[in-house]
Parts: sequence; C-alpha cells; structure tokens
Amino acid sequence: MRSRIAVYPGSFDPVTLGHMDIIERAAKQFDRLIVAVLHAPSKVPLFAIDERKRMLRAVTEHMPNVEVDGFGDLLVRYMRDRAANVIVRGLRAVSDFEYELQMASTNHKLHPQVETLFMMTSPEYSYLSSSIVKEIAKFHGPIDDLVPPLVADALRDKYRA
Amino acid sequence: MRSRIAVYPGSFDPVTLGHMDIIERAAKQFDRLIVAVLHAPSKVPLFAIDERKRMLRAVTEHMPNVEVDGFGDLLVRYMRDRAANVIVRGLRAVSDFEYELQMASTNHKLHPQVETLFMMTSPEYSYLSSSIVKEIAKFHGPIDDLVPPLVADALRDKYRA
Amino acid sequence: MRSRIAVYPGSFDPVTLGHMDIIERAAKQFDRLIVAVLHAPSKVPLFAIDERKRMLRAVTEHMPNVEVDGFGDLLVRYMRDRAANVIVRGLRAVSDFEYELQMASTNHKLHPQVETLFMMTSPEYSYLSSSIVKEIAKFHGPIDDLVPPLVADALRDKYRA
Amino acid sequence: MRSRIAVYPGSFDPVTLGHMDIIERAAKQFDRLIVAVLHAPSKVPLFAIDERKRMLRAVTEHMPNVEVDGFGDLLVRYMRDRAANVIVRGLRAVSDFEYELQMASTNHKLHPQVETLFMMTSPEYSYLSSSIVKEIAKFHGPIDDLVPPLVADALRDKYRA
Amino acid sequence: MRSRIAVYPGSFDPVTLGHMDIIERAAKQFDRLIVAVLHAPSKVPLFAIDERKRMLRAVTEHMPNVEVDGFGDLLVRYMRDRAANVIVRGLRAVSDFEYELQMASTNHKLHPQVETLFMMTSPEYSYLSSSIVKEIAKFHGPIDDLVPPLVADALRDKYRA
Amino acid sequence: MRSRIAVYPGSFDPVTLGHMDIIERAAKQFDRLIVAVLHAPSKVPLFAIDERKRMLRAVTEHMPNVEVDGFGDLLVRYMRDRAANVIVRGLRAVSDFEYELQMASTNHKLHPQVETLFMMTSPEYSYLSSSIVKEIAKFHGPIDDLVPPLVADALRDKYRA
Repeated sequence: MRSRIAVYPGSFDPVTLGHMDIIERAAKQFDRLIVAVLHAPSKVPLFAIDERKRMLRAVTEHMPNVEVDGFGDLLVRYMRDRAANVIVRGLRAVSDFEYELQMASTNHKLHPQVETLFMMTSPEYSYLSSSIVKEIAKFHGPIDDLVPPLVADALRDKYRA
Repeated sequence: MRSRIAVYPGSFDPVTLGHMDIIERAAKQFDRLIVAVLHAPSKVPLFAIDERKRMLRAVTEHMPNVEVDGFGDLLVRYMRDRAANVIVRGLRAVSDFEYELQMASTNHKLHPQVETLFMMTSPEYSYLSSSIVKEIAKFHGPIDDLVPPLVADALRDKYRA
Repeated sequence: MRSRIAVYPGSFDPVTLGHMDIIERAAKQFDRLIVAVLHAPSKVPLFAIDERKRMLRAVTEHMPNVEVDGFGDLLVRYMRDRAANVIVRGLRAVSDFEYELQMASTNHKLHPQVETLFMMTSPEYSYLSSSIVKEIAKFHGPIDDLVPPLVADALRDKYRA
Repeated sequence: MRSRIAVYPGSFDPVTLGHMDIIERAAKQFDRLIVAVLHAPSKVPLFAIDERKRMLRAVTEHMPNVEVDGFGDLLVRYMRDRAANVIVRGLRAVSDFEYELQMASTNHKLHPQVETLFMMTSPEYSYLSSSIVKEIAKFHGPIDDLVPPLVADALRDKYRA
Repeated sequence: MRSRIAVYPGSFDPVTLGHMDIIERAAKQFDRLIVAVLHAPSKVPLFAIDERKRMLRAVTEHMPNVEVDGFGDLLVRYMRDRAANVIVRGLRAVSDFEYELQMASTNHKLHPQVETLFMMTSPEYSYLSSSIVKEIAKFHGPIDDLVPPLVADALRDKYRA
Repeated sequence: MRSRIAVYPGSFDPVTLGHMDIIERAAKQFDRLIVAVLHAPSKVPLFAIDERKRMLRAVTEHMPNVEVDGFGDLLVRYMRDRAANVIVRGLRAVSDFEYELQMASTNHKLHPQVETLFMMTSPEYSYLSSSIVKEIAKFHGPIDDLVPPLVADALRDKYRA
C-alpha cells in the first residue's frame, strides 16, 4: 500500500485543545498528516494566516509526521497537488454532522478518489470552538484550559486594553 | 374542487438541480405552480432578481403549468394576491426541517387558509445548495453536474478572472 | 388534471387529535383522502383493526371526501390498487423526519409515480402520540383534550379495572 | 437554604410572548429573577438597550420578584457580581439545544458554582423568535398575537413608512 | 416562598455516574430532591425495584436532602401526592431532547402547576446510559469508571458465570 | 508504520448495497479490513450467523484484503485479539450519529488505543437499512436495487409462501 497522506483542513483561528485532540489522534492513523489552514479572503480572521500557521507549527513540533500548510484553493484540487487522498474532520454535534455530510458528498462528487474520514471529538472538548474561546478572551475570561499555553498568551495580547 | 395553485418560494441564487427536482415533481401535483423569487433588499445576491427569473424561465419552459414570478412582500400576502393556497418547500436536512417548521407555523398563524406541503429532496441532491455551488464556481471547480447548463455558463461568466 | 387521490397511512391505535388535525387539513387538499389503517400481524395492537376503522369512520363522517380503509400489503402496491398517487404524512419532530425521509425515499424508488407530501403537525399537537395517550389512559389520567370523545370512552373501557 | 436568584439572559430585541411564557414560569421557581439584557457592541439591534429594558420593565411590572437589568460582560462574571447562581434558558428546537449545551458547558467550566436550568418553551410559542417577529413587522403583517401590545405598538412605530 | 420539592424520576436500572452527576447538582437547587424509581410492570428490569432503591439509598446517603422512593402511577399524580412541583430531567442528546419535550408538554397539560427543569449532563458522562453499562458488564468488561463501586459489584454478581 | 487492520462490525442481517459501499471504500483505506458479524444471542435474526458470513464472503471475494469473521464478545476485546486498532462505521442520519458517538466514546474509554473512523454513506444509499429491505421482501416487493443478487435470491427464498 502506498504512503497514506491525510489533510486536516480548517480555519484554526486559533487552534484549540479540541483541534489538538483530533491532530494527535489522526497523526497515529496516517503516514503523514497535513494541517491545512484555510486562507479565505472574504472573512477577516482574528489571527492572520501566518500567525495561525506559526502557532500550529509550535504546538505540533513534537509530532514528526505532522506538517502545517496554508491553502486558498478548492480543497480537492489542493489534495491532488499534495498527492493526499484522505480528508480528516472532527465531529462534535448534530449541526456539524449535517454540514460535514454536505461537504463530504460534494468533495466525493468533485474528486471520487478522495475519501473523508470522521473522528468524534472527545467528550471533554465537545463544547469547544474557536468562536467560544475568542468570546471568552474578549472579556478577559479564563482560557487556559481551552487552548495551548502559547495560544492563550497570543489571545491575551490581542485583547489587551 | 377549485383550481389548485401552489407557490414555491426561494432565493434561487442560482437555481440548482435540487430545485429543478422539486419543481418538476411539484408541477405534477398542482394545476399551476408559481416559482416565486424572493427580492430581499437587505441581502446582496450574486445574480440580480431579473437574471434569476430569466434563468428560471429558460429552464422551466418545457413545463406549461409553471410560472416564474418575483415577490418582495410578506409571503402570505403575496399568496392572497395570487389566489394561491399552497406553499411548496423542499426538505433536505434536520436544520432545514426546524427552520421550515418555524416558517410553516408562522404562515399558518398569519393566514390559516394557507397550507404548506413539504417534499423530500431526492437523495442524490440532498447535499446540494446554491451556496455550495457558488463556493465551487468561485474556485473554477466543476459544476456541470450540479446546475442546468445555462446556469453553469452564467456562473463561469460571473467568476471569470 | 385527473382526480387527485391521497392516502394517509398509519396505525391509528387509536386516532388522536393530532391525526384529526392532519386529516382535516389534508381533506381540503385532495379530491379524495383515504385513511389507510395498517394491519401488521407482527404487532399486537390495543384496538383490533376493525375497532380502529370503526372509530375513524365515526370521527370523520362529517368529511364526505374522506374514506377509511385497511391495508396489510406493501404501501406502494396498495396505492396502485387504489389508483392513488400521493402519500400524506405528518411531521412532528426530528426523529419522525429521519424515518419519514427513509420511507419516502424507499417508496419513491419502489414506485416513482408515487409522491409523498408532508404536513407539519400544528404546534399544539406536536407532543401527542398514540403511545403517550395509551400510557396516560392506562393510569386513568385525563385524556379528553388528547383524543375525540368517542375514543376517550373506548380507552376508558379498555383500561377499566 | 439561602435566597435563590436566577438570571434569564438574552437580547430581547424585542421581547416576545415566548419570552414572557418563560419569564412567568421562571418567576414562580426562584426568589428573584433577573432578566438580563445583553448589550453587545458588535451587533446593531433594532431597539437600543434602554428601549429594550423599558419595554421589559413595563410588561413585567405585575411580577414583583422580577428585575430587569443590562449586562455587557462575561455572563458568569455578571452572575458573581449579582450573587446569582442559576442561569435560566428556554429550549425550542434541536438547534437551540446544541448551542445551549455548548454555552452551559462553557459557563460550568468557567464558574462551576453556576448551574443552568432549561425550560421547554410551550408548544404554542415553539415557532416564535424575535427575528421572525421583526420580519413580519417590517412588511406590516399582523403581530398582535406574537408580542405584548406595548411591543406591537413600538414595532409599528419603527417600521412606519 | 414555600418549600421547594423536586422529583427526579427514572428507571435507574442501575444508577450510573451520569445519574449521580444530576442528583448531586440538583440536590443543591432544591430544599428536597426525591429520586423516584419507576416500577413499570410491563418491562423486566435487570435489578428488581427494591434492589434499585437500596443501591440509590446507599450512594446518596451523604446528601441529607435526597430521598429515594418508588412510584408506579402517573407521574403528575405522584407529584401531587408528594406535594412536589418540579420534575428534574437530564439531557444528553438530541433524541433525549425530543422525548423529553414530549413528556414535559404532556405533563404540563395534565397538571399545569408542575414545571419540568432540565439540566445538561456533564460532557464526560454524555455517552453514558444504563443500557450501555449492562452491555459492557454482560461481557465482563471494565465498568468501574461508569458506575459507583457498589453498583459495579452488584453488576459483576449478576453476570457471574 | 505497522500494518493497519480495521474492523467493520455489524449485524449484516442481511448485507445491503449500503454496507457494500462502505466495505469497498474502507478496503482501500487499510491493509486489511475484517467484516465482523455480530452474534447476539438475545436477538433472533432472519439469517443465522453462518448464512450471513457465507453471503458476505461471496459478495466480497473480489477484494483480497477483506476478511469475514464472526464475534460475540465485547468489541474492544475482539479487536485486541485480532491486533486491530481501527473500527470503521458508516453514518447515515442524525440518529445514527448519536448512537455512534455514544459507542465510539465508550469504546475509546474501554480501550484508548482503539480509534473509530466514520465514513458517510453515499447519498443514494442513505435511506437503506437491513430492516427496510426485509420489510419490502416480506411483501414480495422489488429488492434487486437494494441488495447484491445473491442476497436478493436468499431473501426471496426466506419469504416464499
């Protein structure tokens, strides 16, 4: 069987402990895991794409088969360019489920060789999202149990008065 | 029984093969089917209301009992003006279901003579939406299996570099 | 357009005010509405099929275009025998929705001329089911706001000590 | 047992009969109920926070243990300032449910002494939301069965041509 | 305000750490909490009602305002007999939510003074149910993190070869 | 990376085209795929476990890395015995999703080295289940588009008058 390369796409604005849970578990399942940060010109992120990639590289440097990259193209075209054939996605809730089913069906139709594999988010992170973390950080609430230390510091810097 | 007139309301920005599936099946159930394109001043559509109506007329011209119209008023008031008493809606997913239940209950309260009838979208189009089509077209991805040929051409024109 | 005949299939063990709401609204939408009581040999009902049909006939006798019948065959074959082309179903909740989507897709595959049209149950009956009514009647709880008077009497007879 | 103070947080832009149903039922469950109007600088409301508080005070003045207040801070910090330990939330639909579960888990993690108690919205208001009311009012549709009379008047004033 | 008595009804066959989480949190919210074990003659439980009550009493004896009782009547009638006016229920998942909404609406209709308050199960117990625990115990799998020690012993006794 | 062995557990009573879709896609993702037929003494299946295994072997014989086996133990213990570390499951609907999340969380807690990977069922099979196929076969309805030819024959044999 040829080398198995998976892509874990997302905004990661910023990476949370929920994302870290998926990255660590997925890294064990594939020869290489590419964490692909979406560069969407239409949305204004809190962290610029380079900051998001830098933080992801720092928190994944202990996993030698994990690579951090950015993409701004159609996901299936990016996968072909990277010779990857598996998309990894985390599932938390019913509303995730429906959107993810829609995306997986679309990607399968666009590029039938690409398979999407889903992992359930661990129960203790099932309530966590980048949006909620930013909402709490904005009011200087406690975020140390929600994101890696380096990201917590970056969030405190952003929202410093 | 008097003439049965149904209204299929939506944004149709643009019409997809999922909408076409509902239109073709609904046209068999009623004496007349009015495809009513919503003119919502607060949202900026990709296609102006006249372009959306023109495309819908072109792709439904083989169905003599289908009429294309625009509306910008309260749906139940538009129905009374058109002497229509049935709203047709497609259901794809659980999140559709809840929003649609809310709209059907509201419309029934506002105008008790109006009935909403739901049709399940065929499984092969269950993942399809105008938003996903536009997302793919924006990156010059393949859209020919998702929309009628005339709409695919219009999308390629819109997103030409 | 030829005569429009719809079938509203179910167990009706017994008929509730939620079923009556669908029957009354559906009777206005079709030339004829057949309320088709399922005879499932594998399940032991509270009311025998003849009792269920007798009660339905009594509570629908003011609607001249409503007919009550029994069926024990594949639904789509029964529809062909009765020259009916529309199945009517009520939707209350998300779990209904998924089962109904599954049944509508199967029936459409088995007999493509058959269309399933769904009506949302009115909010005030959204919590009501035959099972809940029987559960309350078993403990001699108040059921007069949940079923027609004739059915309330029949339930009290069944559960008399 | 010490005095039980609950907070019912929301945007209330404007208060609907669905909110009133929750307020009236919750007021019976606690020694004091604080209706806390969210002041979110990032969203432009239809009614300014002072108008929303004034309307809420008028429609709750017959309930002596209900207080109306505004807040713009992290909810759990506001609760600590007010010595309140219960958050009250209404549940209408599956999509509410998931968002509310996420918020309740986050608030519990931030401040473990705070408990969130949920009440199901009464079926007759299950379809109602401030957004739907504003949508109908914008088109001068009938809103008298959806909001208190004072709010209906305020909405008609806002959308007068 | 008069004494606040709540009832937490269920089968508790057997009590799990998920139930314990709700009992401990609910006991802080009310003057008295009655854990009411359902005696349903139609279902054959793994543990007889007396065993279930005995185990619940043992694991709640450190909470002086918690009482364990059995009931076999209509819940709302039992509540009236016990002068209780609040039903407490845990919510884990969307399917719970729909069933619970149905029961809460029915109970409110049968006895409008009764209010149902819902608590979200803590994320780490969101996957837990008595059925899953029995399934694992049947195969002599590890259950010590799922139920109180006394219940784990009772389960091992039941399934000893 | 060591050999990747996945287990696809289920009742397969009987195998449908929906199961075949998952088997064929999963076989491409792993070095070996074990289709593990559940032997549950408490349920009476339509096909005995040996018939179910024989049919599965016949319809998967063109896939050299697919093995068919039976199991009657705790799934995670079976996986350890087979040196497998991935469970494959198909997801069709929201109700699947919740049950599967519960099972995946339980299995992860019982055996943290085991990972569950989910694949979305292709839209054209999203309505399909063994139960629905048996329901149609029982009434001698058309099943040739729902199961492999060999299974269709076996079903017709079972339900011959």
